[in-house]
Formats: sequence, structure tokens, C-alpha cells
Amino acid sequence: EIVAAIEAALADGPLKGRHVIVTSGPTHEPIDPVRYIANRSSGAQGTALARALVALGADVTFITGPADVPPPAGVNLVRVQTARQMKEAVEAALPADAAVFAAAVADWRVASESASKIKKDGKGSLPVLEFAENPDILAGVSRMKQGRPALVVGFAAETDDVIAHATAKRARKGCDWIVANDVSPETGIMGGSENAVTLIREDGAESWPRMGKDQVANRLAQEIAEALS
Amino acid sequence: EIVAAIEAALADGPLKGRHVIVTSGPTHEPIDPVRYIANRSSGAQGTALARALVALGADVTFITGPADVPPPAGVNLVRVQTARQMKEAVEAALPADAAVFAAAVADWRVASESASKIKKDGKGSLPVLEFAENPDILAGVSRMKQGRPALVVGFAAETDDVIAHATAKRARKGCDWIVANDVSPETGIMGGSENAVTLIREDGAESWPRMGKDQVANRLAQEIAEALS
Repeated sequence: EIVAAIEAALADGPLKGRHVIVTSGPTHEPIDPVRYIANRSSGAQGTALARALVALGADVTFITGPADVPPPAGVNLVRVQTARQMKEAVEAALPADAAVFAAAVADWRVASESASKIKKDGKGSLPVLEFAENPDILAGVSRMKQGRPALVVGFAAETDDVIAHATAKRARKGCDWIVANDVSPETGIMGGSENAVTLIREDGAESWPRMGKDQVANRLAQEIAEALS
Repeated sequence: EIVAAIEAALADGPLKGRHVIVTSGPTHEPIDPVRYIANRSSGAQGTALARALVALGADVTFITGPADVPPPAGVNLVRVQTARQMKEAVEAALPADAAVFAAAVADWRVASESASKIKKDGKGSLPVLEFAENPDILAGVSRMKQGRPALVVGFAAETDDVIAHATAKRARKGCDWIVANDVSPETGIMGGSENAVTLIREDGAESWPRMGKDQVANRLAQEIAEALS
């Protein structure tokens, strides 16, 4: 960690002096004091990307949900639990030259969060959870009228029809790039050490071969440095 | 780990030759391939208890959901994700002299689990989750007509009116003891290193002072050894 921090401070790479926001990990959306809705994001890809950006000299604000992997060294670290907290942290971290939203943010939260533990009523009736849509952090930042980062990158975790879904997501959100991947359980990507991504830009989709998440991170960080140069 | 395993094999304590089932940790109930419902059980108390039972010479089958803490050494380890898998693992581990259900088993699973990732429909409509009641492992084992363990112990994680709720739970489930604790967020017990428990038996409730989860485990293991002697 100390070595990484020193390296980061000394780094004189292409992103020196650039501020990049990276979100990572899952969000946890509470149901009651003991239960919550989670997702299988480990935070591995976002963490690797933040590390790669630091190595290129960037000043990285790393906003992470409760991830399985430890956060990288040399970043401004902000820990959050819920989507709403993540949105607040992103807003507090702006302005930035680039923002990369690698976190798997819950689309919905439980609107009917209970202050005490929901109990079985003994009659076999089941709880009813009412949902509310979470703020769309990616779309919100992509559509900023003033102070929008020059480069806004979203991630799309899909289980089917990956490129079509991700291309539509890029248009819908108004972001510059989408990094799409297939998180079907049989790929072993969610929670695993490898990733197979397709980078979707205005001019089309570029599928990268399956490689380590560190390698994906290095390549993506290089692309970001080129885009900001 | 090796030392613990050797100690366990050599242990000639009061539980030598006794088979004890311990369940521990949360269960994860899938919503779709990437989302699931979880709870804040770290598995710390169940893991400490299993370790204490091994130290007293017991042959421990340790059935754990996806816990934060690593499993103890010297046990027969069975890893599960869902409540239904946990029930199957308990049934496969029987017969036993005692069964201690320290896991925070989800009361409900999502009946409408989706084979592909649930997506926003673009019209702002919200997903509807249908729930189904999970099998009640504690009640099922407590009410076995044949081959019931001599001692069946349940745990009750409550956020209010702890002793009343836990005493009612003991009667309702048909178990011998309930280890009750207050998991209100302000206690810091769920996910923390300390516990303040009340042991509820047929003859009443005994509140123990707040102490480390290891100390709670040692004292509970001693009580179990006495009950089986």
C-alpha cells in the first residue's frame, strides 16, 4: 500500500493532474434492520480500473459500495451502502475530467423499509415489499448541462443479447461509452478474475478477448487517457 | 488451522464422541442471476460456537451460508447459499446428539425468481416480487417424531421486546433452548465482536452480561456439554 501510494504520488503519466471519479462494487438496499437486497458485484473490475488510472497519474476519487475486494491504494476513498448515498458522493466529488460508473447500482430500493425486523405473522401471510426507483446516477451525470465531465463511461452487466442491450443503454443514458459484459452465471465473470467486455462508443462496438480484469483495466485506462489527451 | 485440527483430534473433552450440528451465517435468496436478498449475519457467533464445541471434543458438522468470517478448523464443513439448501444439508447430517441453529435463515425466498436479469421497462413500472415461505428448519427438527436430537437450540435475533419474542418463539418452534439477542443497529452486535444474549429454557430466561462472541460461545458450549452429560 505504501509503495503504491508513493508510486501514485510520483506518477507522471498521461493522466497527471486529471481528476477521475470511479464508482465500484454493489449497493445494499435495506429491507429492515437485518435484511437487504444485494447483488453479486465483487468490485474487482472497478477496483482494478481505479488502480490502473492511479498508475497513469490520475487523481482518483473511488466511491465504493460494500465490495468483496479491498479498495486500491492511492485514491480518495468514499464508502457508501445505498444508491442514494452513492449519488450524493458522486455529486460531492464533481467536477471531474472523467467519470466511470463501474458500480452495480441497484435499480430499485425498498420504499417500504421497516424500522424493526419484519416478522412472520403466524398466519402464513407473506410480506409485501414496495419498491421505488433509485436515482439514475449515470444518466444524471451524462445529462448535466453545466460541468459535465468530458468523458462519462457506464457499465452494462447483461445476461442476454449483450451488445444490443448495451448499445441501447448508451443512447438512453446519454453517456459517451458503455463497457458491456455478459454476467450470465455460466460465464463465471461476476465474482471471477476474468472479464470479456465490449466497448461501445458512438462509432460502434469493439469486443475485446476474454482476459484478466487487471488487463481489461489497463486497456480501459489507456483508452481513457487517449480520450482526455 | 493445523494446530486446531490436531487439538480437535486429540480433544478428550466432555463432548468426545458426540455429534453436534451447527448452522451459521446468512442465507442468500436469489431474485435473478445478479440480485439476491441477504441479511447482516456475519457468521461470527456460529463460527465461535463450533470452535468451542470442537475444543470440548465434539464431532461438529458445520453448515454455513455465505459468511464474512472464515469457517473454523476441525469441523465437517458444508457450504450452502439458500434456506432450502441448508435444510437439505441438515437432514443429510442427521442423526446428531445436539443441533444448534445459529444461522440467520431467510424466512422468505423470492417465489418469482427470474432466470434472466430483471430490467427496467423504460416506463417506470416497478418489479413485483412474489415471496414464498422458506422451510422452518428449527421447527422441523424440533418436532421430529423419530431420531430427534436430544438437544435442539435455536437463535432469535430480535430488534424489540427481545425476551418476550424469544420465549414465544421457543414455544412455537418446540425447541429446547433459544439463545436470544438484540440486533438493533445501535447495539453493534450484528457484524460486531461482542454479544449480549439471553438463554431461554423451559424453566425461564437467563440474561448473560455483554461479552465477546468467543466467551458467549465457550459458555454455551459448556451448557451444551452439561445438558448432554
